[in-house]
Amino acid sequence: MEATLAFARRCDAADPLAPVRKEFVLPDGVIYLDGNSLGALPAAVPGRLASVVADQWGSHLVGAWNEDSWWTAPERIGDRIGALIGAALGQTVAGDSTSVQLFNALTASARARSGRSVVLTDAGQFPTDGYLADSVARLLGLEVARVSDPHAALRRRGGEVAVVVWSVVDFRTGELWDVAGLTSAAHEAGALAVWDLCHAAGAVPLRLDADQADMAVGCTYKYLSGGPGAPAFLYVARRLQAGFDQPLTGWHGHARPFSMDPGYAPAAGIARARIGTPPMLSLLALEAALEVFGTVDMAAIRAKSLGLGEFFIACADSLLAGLGFAVVTPRAPERRGSHVTLRHPDAHPLMAALIEAGVMGDVRPPDLLRFGFNALYTSYAEVFGAVEALREVTASGRYREARFSVGKAVT
Amino acid sequence: MEATLAFARRCDAADPLAPVRKEFVLPDGVIYLDGNSLGALPAAVPGRLASVVADQWGSHLVGAWNEDSWWTAPERIGDRIGALIGAALGQTVAGDSTSVQLFNALTASARARSGRSVVLTDAGQFPTDGYLADSVARLLGLEVARVSDPHAALRRRGGEVAVVVWSVVDFRTGELWDVAGLTSAAHEAGALAVWDLCHAAGAVPLRLDADQADMAVGCTYKYLSGGPGAPAFLYVARRLQAGFDQPLTGWHGHARPFSMDPGYAPAAGIARARIGTPPMLSLLALEAALEVFGTVDMAAIRAKSLGLGEFFIACADSLLAGLGFAVVTPRAPERRGSHVTLRHPDAHPLMAALIEAGVMGDVRPPDLLRFGFNALYTSYAEVFGAVEALREVTASGRYREARFSVGKAVT
Repeated sequence: MEATLAFARRCDAADPLAPVRKEFVLPDGVIYLDGNSLGALPAAVPGRLASVVADQWGSHLVGAWNEDSWWTAPERIGDRIGALIGAALGQTVAGDSTSVQLFNALTASARARSGRSVVLTDAGQFPTDGYLADSVARLLGLEVARVSDPHAALRRRGGEVAVVVWSVVDFRTGELWDVAGLTSAAHEAGALAVWDLCHAAGAVPLRLDADQADMAVGCTYKYLSGGPGAPAFLYVARRLQAGFDQPLTGWHGHARPFSMDPGYAPAAGIARARIGTPPMLSLLALEAALEVFGTVDMAAIRAKSLGLGEFFIACADSLLAGLGFAVVTPRAPERRGSHVTLRHPDAHPLMAALIEAGVMGDVRPPDLLRFGFNALYTSYAEVFGAVEALREVTASGRYREARFSVGKAVT
Repeated sequence: MEATLAFARRCDAADPLAPVRKEFVLPDGVIYLDGNSLGALPAAVPGRLASVVADQWGSHLVGAWNEDSWWTAPERIGDRIGALIGAALGQTVAGDSTSVQLFNALTASARARSGRSVVLTDAGQFPTDGYLADSVARLLGLEVARVSDPHAALRRRGGEVAVVVWSVVDFRTGELWDVAGLTSAAHEAGALAVWDLCHAAGAVPLRLDADQADMAVGCTYKYLSGGPGAPAFLYVARRLQAGFDQPLTGWHGHARPFSMDPGYAPAAGIARARIGTPPMLSLLALEAALEVFGTVDMAAIRAKSLGLGEFFIACADSLLAGLGFAVVTPRAPERRGSHVTLRHPDAHPLMAALIEAGVMGDVRPPDLLRFGFNALYTSYAEVFGAVEALREVTASGRYREARFSVGKAVT
């Protein structure tokens, strides 16, 4: 693989997904490699959202809950997400934040394995997941074990483990975990496996049903481009739904929400995982954003995503040689998600200078620069341009200027 | 008070809030008396939301979290709501659903009164509040006592009560509770008072600080007209914030959210009550919706709201006499919120027929018809028209037609 612009242009010319880029609104003069933090605006969203506001809320008022099928949106949109994560219908619901969904999933999982005392999680995972595991453990009297090798931990203490909660793609390094393998190991130990799909959904083909995953949560504002803070989702395998015993017993999850019964009776199926009234404007913007996935398949997305990542690494190896960078992300395609992370001691000011130069990535402490590739709108030429710009700000020393010293690129 | 259209027109002509109606988009041919379920569309929302989508998300991408002050929106919008509920700055945060906020508030309250075993709540309150009280009680090993006279219950078992959770306005009857009185009684017993403001915020003047309320939650899609499922809010009195120990420990409530620490350390102040990434499109639509409250004061809203309710009751007494209706809502103004509820054995088909006749109210089981008045956009003439239409569908017997037999008006 040549690390040249000419090579990038040949790849773009041959890219079957290149026409999909016009389904997104991207500002001129920016190379956007932070869609793994907030996905770009899908072109379908502004018109849909305007219509939801004027033609549904404004015209039908409260009647829109029925007339415009707002009430069933969490399951309908959940099913649309389910199609992207290998979940058959009726197992995925959209709503709330990933934090809230994970709290529900972990509590329900631990209750389904009562008598076991350990929540096993990744020492290096996204902090919220650990915070919520700690909170659930405190409420239920469990212990959280943070490990880096979950298979070894399961061999050692498997009989104590109630639930293994793990991210499919590591938010820092971009490492891709083996869902089937770890789920199987959890099951052999008698534990449940809950997966965090935040950095995987929409970028990596997932087969939750086939891999026998128990539950999964994920956000929709990264590779699914659902909008800032777009509602998260929760997957509960059908075999576990009848016993799904959640702590957030809001009225939308009730079997007869409008009978206003004084006691909680969970709805049948995935509807019982609903909580309170969902933020419909954000939720219906997400629905519009998901439409683009009806026109492409995940295998094509994965192939291009891996190609972009490989090209980024090749460019980094070539253009950034001797400038103090190290590639943190695994090079083997089967161990890589859809972002590539570089380590550099001056990560913060480098990223600030790079953003000023028109290339948006982000940083994660202490010294990591992240670059995300969304196969639906990222081009090979942009990847080349990003690495070239990074070389320029680094080699010139321009990033050492005082205005780049603070972490303005932190979000 | 005359129950006539002429009287209504004189009231409308003298109404100082009449000009505010143009700040809302209301469809022609509809009398909308269900703003206590979903508030009408504020005229400021469509343009603001379009700008948030195109000029912020679409143009600034992830940079909008800083450039467009998305990150601080939960506290900023919380403060705007705080101004309407008698809360000084820094005690109110917007986000998530009322269910989720109530779960957080009840758990934190019970933890602040550990050693006490009872959650005292209203036997007739909105079911979700009871479901979540039950859930928190189960997690913490408490008992939920559902009572109709909280003062008597506090006299009897006050020493056991950790927290009293009560609605300011009863969702069924429209009865207004005495916040100061019940809060004071809770405090005398050593308990905390958590208030549900769903049917009060934006309609009834509240003085949470002055009344020494401990915590409060509420939705913003009723009288605040924030949009379908608009984010809820949580108030935590400043004196309790340092000890506010919530179960939903998402990264947005962390003292250093971007340092990605493995352990949770709550932020100072009300920011610690944040959870996960909020649904920004819904949240910023809410912010636009709240602007109208900058132009009016709550005393004027309350005065008109009581006037509309009194006129509705006068019309019902006069026009509906002998048709089987009973007014459920207290007649004394100091005991009334901003909706009036009628009881009728045929409530469901009556409301369905009334909606077909262009008057939107709603029903609550088993036999209640609710009519909500939003002083910002409801006119006296509409109130008269609504009761007149209800008389017509009832007296004519038209509501007995088969097509009104099912509860299509249920949401």
